[in-house]
Amino acid sequence: MNLINHKFELAARPVGVPKRSDWNYKQESVRNLADGELLVKILYISLDPAMRGWMNDSKSYVPPVAIGETMRALALGRVLASKNASFAVGDHVYGPLGVQEFAITNGGAIIKVDPRVAPLPVYLGVLGMPGMTAYFALLEVGKPQPGQTVVVSGAAGAVGSVVGQIAKIKDCRAVGIAGGAKKCQYIVKELGFDAAIDYKTEPVAKALQNHCPRGIDVYFDNVGGDILDAALTQLARGARVVICGAISQYNNTTPTKGPSNYLSLLVNRASMIGFLVSDYASRFAEAAREMAGWIASGKLKSREDIVEGLDKFPETLLKLFTGENFGKLILKLPES
Amino acid sequence: MNLINHKFELAARPVGVPKRSDWNYKQESVRNLADGELLVKILYISLDPAMRGWMNDSKSYVPPVAIGETMRALALGRVLASKNASFAVGDHVYGPLGVQEFAITNGGAIIKVDPRVAPLPVYLGVLGMPGMTAYFALLEVGKPQPGQTVVVSGAAGAVGSVVGQIAKIKDCRAVGIAGGAKKCQYIVKELGFDAAIDYKTEPVAKALQNHCPRGIDVYFDNVGGDILDAALTQLARGARVVICGAISQYNNTTPTKGPSNYLSLLVNRASMIGFLVSDYASRFAEAAREMAGWIASGKLKSREDIVEGLDKFPETLLKLFTGENFGKLILKLPES
Repeated sequence: MNLINHKFELAARPVGVPKRSDWNYKQESVRNLADGELLVKILYISLDPAMRGWMNDSKSYVPPVAIGETMRALALGRVLASKNASFAVGDHVYGPLGVQEFAITNGGAIIKVDPRVAPLPVYLGVLGMPGMTAYFALLEVGKPQPGQTVVVSGAAGAVGSVVGQIAKIKDCRAVGIAGGAKKCQYIVKELGFDAAIDYKTEPVAKALQNHCPRGIDVYFDNVGGDILDAALTQLARGARVVICGAISQYNNTTPTKGPSNYLSLLVNRASMIGFLVSDYASRFAEAAREMAGWIASGKLKSREDIVEGLDKFPETLLKLFTGENFGKLILKLPES
Repeated sequence: MNLINHKFELAARPVGVPKRSDWNYKQESVRNLADGELLVKILYISLDPAMRGWMNDSKSYVPPVAIGETMRALALGRVLASKNASFAVGDHVYGPLGVQEFAITNGGAIIKVDPRVAPLPVYLGVLGMPGMTAYFALLEVGKPQPGQTVVVSGAAGAVGSVVGQIAKIKDCRAVGIAGGAKKCQYIVKELGFDAAIDYKTEPVAKALQNHCPRGIDVYFDNVGGDILDAALTQLARGARVVICGAISQYNNTTPTKGPSNYLSLLVNRASMIGFLVSDYASRFAEAAREMAGWIASGKLKSREDIVEGLDKFPETLLKLFTGENFGKLILKLPES
């Protein structure tokens, strides 16, 4: 085989919203495998809000992507060749394979997935990092009790849509905040949320007051900014605010907007708790089994927003920040 | 007896820093007791940051002081007359008696204190609400483990000074943030803190980095604003940020400054938890016994900043917000 790989390398630290010129689109020959390595043909690349943070040169939970390094991304592909006893040609695998057509890896942080259990894109959404995030952050950090009210922002997104559905499975009231009538209709009519708030047309604090008459017991935040502040005004006594992300702030060129209403934590004896999914890695398989069961029984639905073509990567990533995407955002690459 | 009472009634909702004209200084005859009531000659009035919040007309953990109502304050006095079987003439009592010379109460929320166990002013500080706040917020919410690093802001104040000393009793490293060389010297030399940071002359984040090489495990916040933001940059994995107050923000005429660095909670899987001392009322006696033991054995020291004269109330209260007070701020009234 004489394979040519195309990939996006980080070229510059973005200021504000990333531009195409913040990456270099490169072409290279695929090298031979060393012992222990496998070659993966990438089929689906997961586009996630966290990718924006990885582009910054700042201390965080993982090192930043270096200038000149292949852009980091979770992806799913098929093994084309293997010198690693744990992986065979034809296996489907998922892991941090990068924004490229072919990846060579030693198998670290790579797991096998079974296309007979769920369609491949679902492994990037409900059965992938977003689903694991929703599952563990809601159940282990938010700790909702039956009858309590769970509010989630980014409710039509890859994480938020699963949060609301698990809240319903756990007999909670689920209220979602999303942008636009279509997304709001979708989470109520298709996913079974009890109510939706369109932050583009409704005053969020007032709408939360209407839809959460006994206050918010668990607020699951994916967005930060003004919506987090609105939710803080409506907390119930002892509420848990799960900080999972802050997509409204990731492209800021000014300092992050801190939550002005944080003293509501004091008044309501509430807590605001940070969450990182990687802390639960040892339990992913357990959660995936339970969620696959919910999918099979129709209790948990997934929706993917699939865009075709590796070269579409820069502009497709931006759909996350404009709120244009609807469901788990995925870049699809041709089979061969 | 024909007694005349002087008192401060709330006259207006303050905008920003309270002015003398936000209260009326009034004189009235002390009325006769009804059955179940007692008359208290007030000896010491506790001046606390929370009083500023009680003056605002906003929903909080207690109703605001009404316009025309006696200004709310915790105070300590001696029973002059009693038609309540639980209290005898000569008893010393502590509770929400107000900013006045004489109080009539039905005994609700009033407890007896023993001047043989500790000097009376100590019942407003270490053995009063500030001490209870320090004890329960640190031990029950902050949950410091031996060897961990506890940082407290307002470290020379009524709450902060006790937090640092209890941290030392529990074998933690205690670092205090205070304003000015005198306060910083005091908390290290007199109270046994491991280090002090003078926020008036040192960049706080950098100083915290120096004094907390393994990060902050418990940050006990009394001040909010920039100091809270600095502490958030230095959290250890799994840190607890106890939100006990935000004195830097109480006189704001603009919205409260939210903590810009709150996403440090996510990166460090940390939590920010609100605290109200009244939730622990059923355990105050237990805590007071333990703290009285620490006082007796010299492990816990107290300092009061005592100003004489009821009419000094408005300007004395402001010492809390300028940082002028040094120790528990108390207004002393004449014995008779």
